[in-house]
Amino acid sequence: MVDLELIHDLLTPADTKILLFVLDGLGGLPVTPGGPTELEAADTPNLDRLASDGMVGLHQPVSPGITPGSGPGHIGLFGYDAIRYQIGRGVLEALGVGFDLRPNDLAARGNFCTMDAAGKITDRRAGRIPTERCRALCAELRKIELPGVKMFVEPVREHRFLLVLRGKGLEEGVADTDPEHAGAPPLEVTAERPEAEKAAELVRRFVAGARDRLAGHEPANMVLLRGFARLPDWPKFPEVFGLKSVAVAQYPMYRGVAKLMGMDTAEVGASLDDLLSTLEQVWSRYDFAFVHVKETDKAGEDGAFDRKVRVIEEADRYVPRLMALKPDVVIVTGDHSTPAALRGHSWHPVPFLLWSTTCRPDGVKRFGERWCLEGGAGLCRSEDLMPLALAHAGRMAKFGA
Amino acid sequence: MVDLELIHDLLTPADTKILLFVLDGLGGLPVTPGGPTELEAADTPNLDRLASDGMVGLHQPVSPGITPGSGPGHIGLFGYDAIRYQIGRGVLEALGVGFDLRPNDLAARGNFCTMDAAGKITDRRAGRIPTERCRALCAELRKIELPGVKMFVEPVREHRFLLVLRGKGLEEGVADTDPEHAGAPPLEVTAERPEAEKAAELVRRFVAGARDRLAGHEPANMVLLRGFARLPDWPKFPEVFGLKSVAVAQYPMYRGVAKLMGMDTAEVGASLDDLLSTLEQVWSRYDFAFVHVKETDKAGEDGAFDRKVRVIEEADRYVPRLMALKPDVVIVTGDHSTPAALRGHSWHPVPFLLWSTTCRPDGVKRFGERWCLEGGAGLCRSEDLMPLALAHAGRMAKFGA
Repeated sequence: MVDLELIHDLLTPADTKILLFVLDGLGGLPVTPGGPTELEAADTPNLDRLASDGMVGLHQPVSPGITPGSGPGHIGLFGYDAIRYQIGRGVLEALGVGFDLRPNDLAARGNFCTMDAAGKITDRRAGRIPTERCRALCAELRKIELPGVKMFVEPVREHRFLLVLRGKGLEEGVADTDPEHAGAPPLEVTAERPEAEKAAELVRRFVAGARDRLAGHEPANMVLLRGFARLPDWPKFPEVFGLKSVAVAQYPMYRGVAKLMGMDTAEVGASLDDLLSTLEQVWSRYDFAFVHVKETDKAGEDGAFDRKVRVIEEADRYVPRLMALKPDVVIVTGDHSTPAALRGHSWHPVPFLLWSTTCRPDGVKRFGERWCLEGGAGLCRSEDLMPLALAHAGRMAKFGA
Repeated sequence: MVDLELIHDLLTPADTKILLFVLDGLGGLPVTPGGPTELEAADTPNLDRLASDGMVGLHQPVSPGITPGSGPGHIGLFGYDAIRYQIGRGVLEALGVGFDLRPNDLAARGNFCTMDAAGKITDRRAGRIPTERCRALCAELRKIELPGVKMFVEPVREHRFLLVLRGKGLEEGVADTDPEHAGAPPLEVTAERPEAEKAAELVRRFVAGARDRLAGHEPANMVLLRGFARLPDWPKFPEVFGLKSVAVAQYPMYRGVAKLMGMDTAEVGASLDDLLSTLEQVWSRYDFAFVHVKETDKAGEDGAFDRKVRVIEEADRYVPRLMALKPDVVIVTGDHSTPAALRGHSWHPVPFLLWSTTCRPDGVKRFGERWCLEGGAGLCRSEDLMPLALAHAGRMAKFGA
């Protein structure tokens, strides 16, 4: 099996640029039997032109039948094995709110919950309290004192919050306190391995403090914690692939994943125009740009087929501005499928196009799932896209003599 | 790489049912250059409808170029890695004759053979003696006395028999006594590891006893033994995939493999009608049914192209009865290819269709090898089918956040 080390060893310098344009959750399904998917229904003359001049295919995130979250979806697109390289839930939560997580930090996802007089959980989500209330309660939790570490409690949304402990020797291995179902008391804080005992003891104090301070604050009178994790220590994308890299993304989560992989990041405004403007500003300084559009996924999650079609059509109108930057290789794809018909991520392979001057013609003239099936790249794994991009960018030497 | 544990961890409960309809040895080859395969030649309006409404593809058992036996073929279909999970030959022989193998049993495949006066083998198959003769000689071998264990000697077919020793401490690691070619004497019984010495000593006594009792019974005057094996201790299919499972199969071998994997089994009569009637009786009690038709494979093994076509057409006529059970996911495929042109199993990928309401249209309207090549599932591994079935059945949660 090809791995990052093999790819790295084959790198050869070139003065070429790669653009990865991700329409989150791009892959779709028909809403009428045999009808078009969102992408097939969309009028996309510019993407069709790229598909026609380049090549198309479908990529399978993770493995057939597996529905990826945003983390594994992007990790695969970035060329990493999403099963080997997994981001802990606490870390993802931190990335999602743009928290500046550091190597000595231990992060967990928190829920406010409702506990009855007997100490049993009656609602794991505390009736989904308003985010405003979550913010106030987080301020209350910040008053808990933990010796020898810095503590951060950040509101996320509704009943969700982020807990970060910063200090030396805080190891992974603190077990979840969330029993995952109502009717049981919160689990005791335990260390799954001896190295985690220091962190576990601090978490015990936090939980005891939370119980005291939240008493009377029904429905949010207790906390549940899970996914204790630290920043992973992975090979960095720019070094592995020899690409000075930047992420241009609207949402903190995607900038966070890119940053974790060692990319520079650029924050942008809410519109596609903002996205392109930022890209245009930073493009000259980088070999690789990851550009992320979130709205396709949101439309899919909302079950809004027509809105997803419109977002794709809007993205299509920005393609000429992308091409005006004269990238040597362009990939347009999603990190996973989010069919409006399923109102969520799905396991279906994701359509992609790869444009460069070294594509072998595959006869496909349009960008869409059923046409991608006939494409020159076939059905490949998500992590195959980066080596393909590097090859088309003239950045890969021969393997073996 | 995805594994059973990962799949298991992603399971989410759902009230859905999966039907796996296996036409053994379904994949074929043309008998005229460029002509149709057996499946392509068959008139299969009902399977074509399922292919049209669902999606199709080809699955590769084991690895490209590898021709699987019935064991590895089915183990792959059941979602297990057929290289990691191998059934010993002795165990397969036991399953093939419906022997009720137990955890303390050590099983081996036996051949009657012909040995000359110098003690060298002249015919490893004893001239393929009639099964009737095999039965009589097995009765003779049962008179051998082995201290402290129960012994079973069961006729299989022609020169083949099954030897089972039942008792404590009978470990795997007894070497084959079959030198695999004529002109040599049978190999001494040896233990390949110390733990197998107890079993090896008993097998030595059995071989000595057999030599004595078969003297003068030419051409079957000696035995050869190979494939000493115990029931494997594998993760059980119903637990791994969270599916209450039943195997509806005409042949003991297939019920045996299913039972070994923890499925319930239902014995049925010889006709397809019997098969469907039994399925209809048990269906309400299960989440997963494996239905096995043997005749396609037998026709292939016999080189009977037209007969294989007719068996496929007959199976097609039962599809409406399958669909009347309202399964949520249906897979129709083979465990391997058995082209009549080759009169045996082959390494060619196996056509499959997967029907559910969440298939992405692939434009394929007919079920057959060359149309499956254009299918939405592409060319996948046999062990990908179960995760795909679970996903389409709404039984898999998201991987990562």
